[in-house]
Amino acid sequence: MFEKFCSERIKKTPSSFIREILKVTQNHDIISFAGGLPNPISFPQEELKVSMNRIADTFGAKIYQYSTTEGLESLRQFIADRYKKNHNMDISIDNIIITTGSQQALDLIGKVFVNEGDKVMVENPSYLGLLQAFCVYGADFVQTKLDDDGLNIEELKKTLKEHKPKVAYLIPNFQNPTGLTYTKENRAKVFECIKDEDMILIQDDPYGELKFEDDEKLPYIGVNQSKKNIYLGSFSKIVTPGMRLGYVIADKEVIRLLETAKQAADLHSNIFGQYLIADYLLNNDLDAHIEKIKKLYKEQAAAMVSAMKEFFPPEVKFTQPKGGMFTWVTLREGMDVIKLFDKAIEKKVAFVPGHPFYVNPKNVNTLRLNYTNADSETIKEGIKRLSEAIKEI
Amino acid sequence: MFEKFCSERIKKTPSSFIREILKVTQNHDIISFAGGLPNPISFPQEELKVSMNRIADTFGAKIYQYSTTEGLESLRQFIADRYKKNHNMDISIDNIIITTGSQQALDLIGKVFVNEGDKVMVENPSYLGLLQAFCVYGADFVQTKLDDDGLNIEELKKTLKEHKPKVAYLIPNFQNPTGLTYTKENRAKVFECIKDEDMILIQDDPYGELKFEDDEKLPYIGVNQSKKNIYLGSFSKIVTPGMRLGYVIADKEVIRLLETAKQAADLHSNIFGQYLIADYLLNNDLDAHIEKIKKLYKEQAAAMVSAMKEFFPPEVKFTQPKGGMFTWVTLREGMDVIKLFDKAIEKKVAFVPGHPFYVNPKNVNTLRLNYTNADSETIKEGIKRLSEAIKEI
Repeated sequence: MFEKFCSERIKKTPSSFIREILKVTQNHDIISFAGGLPNPISFPQEELKVSMNRIADTFGAKIYQYSTTEGLESLRQFIADRYKKNHNMDISIDNIIITTGSQQALDLIGKVFVNEGDKVMVENPSYLGLLQAFCVYGADFVQTKLDDDGLNIEELKKTLKEHKPKVAYLIPNFQNPTGLTYTKENRAKVFECIKDEDMILIQDDPYGELKFEDDEKLPYIGVNQSKKNIYLGSFSKIVTPGMRLGYVIADKEVIRLLETAKQAADLHSNIFGQYLIADYLLNNDLDAHIEKIKKLYKEQAAAMVSAMKEFFPPEVKFTQPKGGMFTWVTLREGMDVIKLFDKAIEKKVAFVPGHPFYVNPKNVNTLRLNYTNADSETIKEGIKRLSEAIKEI
Repeated sequence: MFEKFCSERIKKTPSSFIREILKVTQNHDIISFAGGLPNPISFPQEELKVSMNRIADTFGAKIYQYSTTEGLESLRQFIADRYKKNHNMDISIDNIIITTGSQQALDLIGKVFVNEGDKVMVENPSYLGLLQAFCVYGADFVQTKLDDDGLNIEELKKTLKEHKPKVAYLIPNFQNPTGLTYTKENRAKVFECIKDEDMILIQDDPYGELKFEDDEKLPYIGVNQSKKNIYLGSFSKIVTPGMRLGYVIADKEVIRLLETAKQAADLHSNIFGQYLIADYLLNNDLDAHIEKIKKLYKEQAAAMVSAMKEFFPPEVKFTQPKGGMFTWVTLREGMDVIKLFDKAIEKKVAFVPGHPFYVNPKNVNTLRLNYTNADSETIKEGIKRLSEAIKEI
């Protein structure tokens, strides 16, 4: 009965595919590679318990009161210091706004910059949460292919020339859904292509800290070289997602615009959570904590890759992630991944079919696998079941 | 430099007037009636500390993990039970979604139902947070005058006939900014007028629990009689605003639409906060806690009313709130409230000029005073200063 009341924007907004799938996979004997849940080991539970008692004793009513839209100063200072140190970024707390998870950052950026019909360039495939958030504001998506070493430069040039996108959204590190990472060379080439374009570049980086090897750090695209760069970060994958705390780093003028949008969206993010995370960060060794997570995920990723090598038919391709939480599987041409999904559920294993990561899904023969929420033995068993399903359809 | 990138919607969204004012009033020797902060007494700090330790011990990683968009079941069950008991509402948890404060509820409802140019009826004056949230989605506001006993019925009829609004937004209890409450009779008349209209009715009720007298409870307009009713509630004024937890009660179909919008907006609200508030509510006597808040606010409201009676020139009118957090002052015709604001700041007292509460502010001679965040003596001194300012301009 509410159909006639609905806004045009909500009519075209897809409900999250993944959340629907997660309902199917609640069943306990299903091995699920469908979610994107961090392993609970990444939550420093004991330390957070110490911190919550400390902030309650130290700050009293402040942790429960209304607060500022831009977010807690000590938390923004920590972020500024960390990005100065790790990325040599030339920023202060005025370049930072705290958001209710990175998803809100996407929503606010869409709200501030995307008019109905504006061209937005995304990777092909791209993160479904961005597609959903910007769809609400009427974005007209154009896609550029993602190769093993990053954006396909030829296609990028063509896309820029043909479509003149107003905004580009990239995930250069351990991309969701593919697990792919742009090489240093590719980043430089991408910046060379876009530096004279009148385009805002969003670099979303929820997984950048989860880099398995300790080799060279990869720089952000055009870091310190463009005022039109917007960086997104999050505490979801390195401390806790349940607290819903992400952040945007950008030019001060952009931060002010996002602040206006955030006032209308939720006034401010949970201030208790901000005090809690800030206290945790200031009193513990975050890097040591991240090392533990990386060690675990590296093992899990290796277990999945090794099982895929052992069990998958040779025509099935998959990415070999160097960090993050996902691998991306490409079945043989013409294979229907939805059919595979049904067969896989029969075999008690679940994944996310590629559809929600494409702007125009058709003939989809790809799927996303998450490896962070199961132990190596379970991963092996799950991949074995999936291989059987692949062979049977 | 970002002007040209901005969406049309953000260009017309007002930045919060109040937050700008709050910056002026940071100065410690200013007595501020400008904010809308609950008194810290309303935060059950000791009990919340017990609860946070208990949920950490009981639920472990769950309080830090990703969670469902609709919100924690035990919290929604508590809300359903309370509204069944207090308002005889015929609802289940499927009629409830948890939001990141009531402000997010406004944003999501605007996102789901308001198309560019859609008529939205609001009280005159209305809550600035709603005006801001719906402005983003292009609402065309029409206003109906608020009298001492509720909506002006003649004007309501005229507005409905002339504009056929798609959505109406009302705050029947201790309205923000006026402090006014609709009588039982007025509520019945309002429902009589709207019951056959093809219109969604939002009743926002952050202050309903803060009713100073224990006389008859006032029913929601058309409660249990219309599927097109949407109710908003919040824990901000009775437990803690810093946790950013509000909720929407509505038809299941509306809840599903809001869920889709919320997925794109922030995935879900802080789950730690939801566990915390649920644990507090299930292990403490909320009604006894609310009694304490009411007793304090009643005293503070009485102190303000009595000081206004004592010091204000007789031509200055003000409302006498029976609950909530605000009173609304009307200066003599032609007086410029911005001039008064500057004079008041000189005298070290602050308030919110009426402007942000109107759709089309002009010749504004009204202002909002908050009484919940100062003791009776300070309130008396502040009103004395304000009276001097009024007399001097």
